[in-house]
Amino acid sequence: MPAYRYGLLIKHILEHVLVRAPDKEIVYRDKVRYTYKGFYERVCKLASVLEEIGVKKGSKIGILDWDTHNYLEAYYAIPMMGAIMHTINLRLPPELILYTIRHAGDDFLMVRDEFLPLIERVKDKLVGVKGFIVASESKQVPETPLEPVYNLEEMMDKASPSYEFPDLPEDTDATIFYTTGTTGMPKGVIFTHRQIVLHTFAIALSLSGFYPSPVTITSRDVLMPLVPFFHVHSWGLPYAATLGGCKMVLLGRYDPGLALEMIAKEGVTFSHMVPSILHMIVNHPRVHEYRDALSRWKVVIGGAALPRGLAEQAMRLGIKVMAGYGLSETCPVLTLSVLKDYMAEWPDEKKLDVLIKTGIPAPLVKLRVVDNQMRDVPRDGKHMGEIVVRAPWCTREYYNDPERTEELWAGGWMHTGDVAVWDEEGYIQITGRAKFVIKSGGEWIPPLILENLLSLHPAVSEVAVVGVPSDKWGERPIAIVATKPEYRGKVTEEELRKHLEKAVEEGKILKWWIPEKFIFVEQIPKTTVGKIDRLKLMEEYKKIKLP
Amino acid sequence: MPAYRYGLLIKHILEHVLVRAPDKEIVYRDKVRYTYKGFYERVCKLASVLEEIGVKKGSKIGILDWDTHNYLEAYYAIPMMGAIMHTINLRLPPELILYTIRHAGDDFLMVRDEFLPLIERVKDKLVGVKGFIVASESKQVPETPLEPVYNLEEMMDKASPSYEFPDLPEDTDATIFYTTGTTGMPKGVIFTHRQIVLHTFAIALSLSGFYPSPVTITSRDVLMPLVPFFHVHSWGLPYAATLGGCKMVLLGRYDPGLALEMIAKEGVTFSHMVPSILHMIVNHPRVHEYRDALSRWKVVIGGAALPRGLAEQAMRLGIKVMAGYGLSETCPVLTLSVLKDYMAEWPDEKKLDVLIKTGIPAPLVKLRVVDNQMRDVPRDGKHMGEIVVRAPWCTREYYNDPERTEELWAGGWMHTGDVAVWDEEGYIQITGRAKFVIKSGGEWIPPLILENLLSLHPAVSEVAVVGVPSDKWGERPIAIVATKPEYRGKVTEEELRKHLEKAVEEGKILKWWIPEKFIFVEQIPKTTVGKIDRLKLMEEYKKIKLP
Repeated sequence: MPAYRYGLLIKHILEHVLVRAPDKEIVYRDKVRYTYKGFYERVCKLASVLEEIGVKKGSKIGILDWDTHNYLEAYYAIPMMGAIMHTINLRLPPELILYTIRHAGDDFLMVRDEFLPLIERVKDKLVGVKGFIVASESKQVPETPLEPVYNLEEMMDKASPSYEFPDLPEDTDATIFYTTGTTGMPKGVIFTHRQIVLHTFAIALSLSGFYPSPVTITSRDVLMPLVPFFHVHSWGLPYAATLGGCKMVLLGRYDPGLALEMIAKEGVTFSHMVPSILHMIVNHPRVHEYRDALSRWKVVIGGAALPRGLAEQAMRLGIKVMAGYGLSETCPVLTLSVLKDYMAEWPDEKKLDVLIKTGIPAPLVKLRVVDNQMRDVPRDGKHMGEIVVRAPWCTREYYNDPERTEELWAGGWMHTGDVAVWDEEGYIQITGRAKFVIKSGGEWIPPLILENLLSLHPAVSEVAVVGVPSDKWGERPIAIVATKPEYRGKVTEEELRKHLEKAVEEGKILKWWIPEKFIFVEQIPKTTVGKIDRLKLMEEYKKIKLP
Repeated sequence: MPAYRYGLLIKHILEHVLVRAPDKEIVYRDKVRYTYKGFYERVCKLASVLEEIGVKKGSKIGILDWDTHNYLEAYYAIPMMGAIMHTINLRLPPELILYTIRHAGDDFLMVRDEFLPLIERVKDKLVGVKGFIVASESKQVPETPLEPVYNLEEMMDKASPSYEFPDLPEDTDATIFYTTGTTGMPKGVIFTHRQIVLHTFAIALSLSGFYPSPVTITSRDVLMPLVPFFHVHSWGLPYAATLGGCKMVLLGRYDPGLALEMIAKEGVTFSHMVPSILHMIVNHPRVHEYRDALSRWKVVIGGAALPRGLAEQAMRLGIKVMAGYGLSETCPVLTLSVLKDYMAEWPDEKKLDVLIKTGIPAPLVKLRVVDNQMRDVPRDGKHMGEIVVRAPWCTREYYNDPERTEELWAGGWMHTGDVAVWDEEGYIQITGRAKFVIKSGGEWIPPLILENLLSLHPAVSEVAVVGVPSDKWGERPIAIVATKPEYRGKVTEEELRKHLEKAVEEGKILKWWIPEKFIFVEQIPKTTVGKIDRLKLMEEYKKIKLP
């Protein structure tokens, strides 16, 4: 057969932008500014450099970096060569970073200079690593006992600006990332070229306006990622923005003040982030100076539920918000809370009911909510079950972990561990993690619904509801509440209980869901990826004396 | 490996609309109106019927029908069962229809009642056909000597409304269509599930507004195809509209008056068609009664170049227009003349320069313009070469025709046979078919550019420029001109020559490109798919005495 067998390769995304929008810009802080044409040249140079130091098809390159232009170059150069990019989770403790480097079997590490001390401390354990590529804004590499060490920018200056990227099989591994989970050691999830390309098309189409939503991304938008590049390809948005030829603004290490500045200065119109980042930005002391720029800002929130209180606060600043949902295991997007046609004309309040939901499956995502016999629960918005999925971009395995892979894919469906309800319309609402849902008197209490309601109280800054042991009920919920500074010491347990009793009267929750206790704290503990650390809270409060 | 291997299957498009927009409507004339939910039930019933009469995986089912709901049901039911839908070209002469049925090896024929006489006439030659499924609005099947005959609607009434569609390998053949070409017997082009799904995503994304264009299709649009269902899946738009959950309006057999009526009555906002259909609609005597509805109508024109005169005429009626390009061999879309960001603010006149171009490659389409040594010609908008392509949806072969398949894929690139220039921006402009470009004094004269200029003359309704033999120059161009009725006999050769001389002065064309003769006719002959029949014109005028 003489026909060319066309694989779905990451290089095709980059080739497209070279035709569509070669002159659109990529900006890294106030440090670097070049066009996609210039970007492509740098991608070729990076590939030339990597080849020179011995990177081959199948080599793994671990990256320790903030969201820099170097990282974005690696997003293309490494997989396009046939090598595998290991996006190392910077928020892990050093010993777990070491664990993931060794478990993945990284052949090379590409390290921003400020992370050198971290690596130097464990260098004797990095036996498999054949070289350290150091990226530095100063173009200088500090003295280091690591070897061999390569000065990235120095080598880039001399590297060939053309590189012939091979036609790989589309099932070639492109990236690996370690998901922290909440128990056990990190697990590696791999994504192939095909998976990343299909995920890119599905999220681009979902967010293009093809389906109605106040939050869209098109070629005219300016993307500033606020999900770190190391975290499942920053949810795939950098790839989608490249396909669209969007201007991209990279923030390096995140800082809410700098984020606000860049939104205004570079005309950023689209970002994606976890709720806690949005929380920091909308509560930034200077946020009101940026109202004009924020009125053009559209954000997708994922990684955790979008509390209605936070969404409303953002909307009062003119920000357009929408929720999405996915897992590290799913590349990550599974659902987005885009609207249906007839909702587009609804009043904002009513639209928000939908926009803060977990969402509706993206094209090509087959999603079910099932009981423990794998039977679909009724689509009534009430019956809870586990979300299980199939999609072209679900990871095929936990790297080198057949046992947990078996669990993940039990019965041919990927188990998310998330408990949810779905409604007749196909929208999903997560009510908790399978292991965090509170079982009280044999019935489930969904912590997220309670947290959402409590977040609407004016005194509440952040809140977590967790289950603690109860002799009588098995488990009972308690609420850990961080109040806004101006309310500190001025809000009582009784007041919050009344707030929820009102919700009981309105039929939103059941009376026995109301937490037994409301504990006021200054800060809610978070996991390394910024989610509420429920395990820690459960551990901390398990000795509370409850009836 | 326990992971589910997710193939790109046509059923995933249909599953998505059942979640996104189950209540949006599909309308066939004033005959049938149901929702996607009802549609899905009918698709299941059709599969049940086909299974009952013996259709199996790999069976081929030829369809002779206009754009009806039955046909749209077949678009899904047949490939989703693992069978292959042969969309028979109704515009072929009977002996060629017979040829394609026999060449494809159709196992069953699904025939609208009005086409029964056509099939009855050749029934003795339909040796491989195991059954005839007759679709009839009256639900009655007329007396026929064909056997066995199945009454589609009668069987549908009794069929099971649920059907478990299998998880096929994504490379399973889904459709076959015979392209007429301009010489030789029709050639069969096959498309797989994977190809159709990827094509659907690429055109949906291209037209979603992700890239700027006055012509977009989103879930809020109402699609009325004006490219027959038999013609390369009506360019794939019905699949894209399903993915979007668009309301769809089917016209059955085309009629410009009925088209206008349905646009107004059903709120049609999007159609796609060849220029001659647009020509008929905008010149319909009652077109001005529909100005309000037409002001919301967006059209994509393909199959032949969009003449500027026609585009301007449509725009004066408020219609938004854009060109696209592809071949039967390419599923078919390769390019769309979407704009670049900085063009979005241009005045309409200047935008139109881009919108009527052949276009810019769609995502995942790798397109080159090459000389006969397969070297890229300069991207200067001047140097001509052949368009060669790679895309995930190029047909792998001409069915059972290895020799022409070799030619098609010579050198690993699909040869389109179209001659074009490309410019720095990546836009393509076709200047002629390889075999229709005029070679004069060893240099090429592009007929389409001349036709485009002539179409701007107020007297010109349609025009074709073809080459005829010349002793002195090898070939010289002549223009065959159909004038508008009110200009008939009132426009002279001299006047059109002056019109082109003005274009020479403006640097748009070269003086020696001006046709030797202008021949006035009432109608330009067309091929069965509505394109100008250049072969016929060349044949007819080859004996013209030229210096």
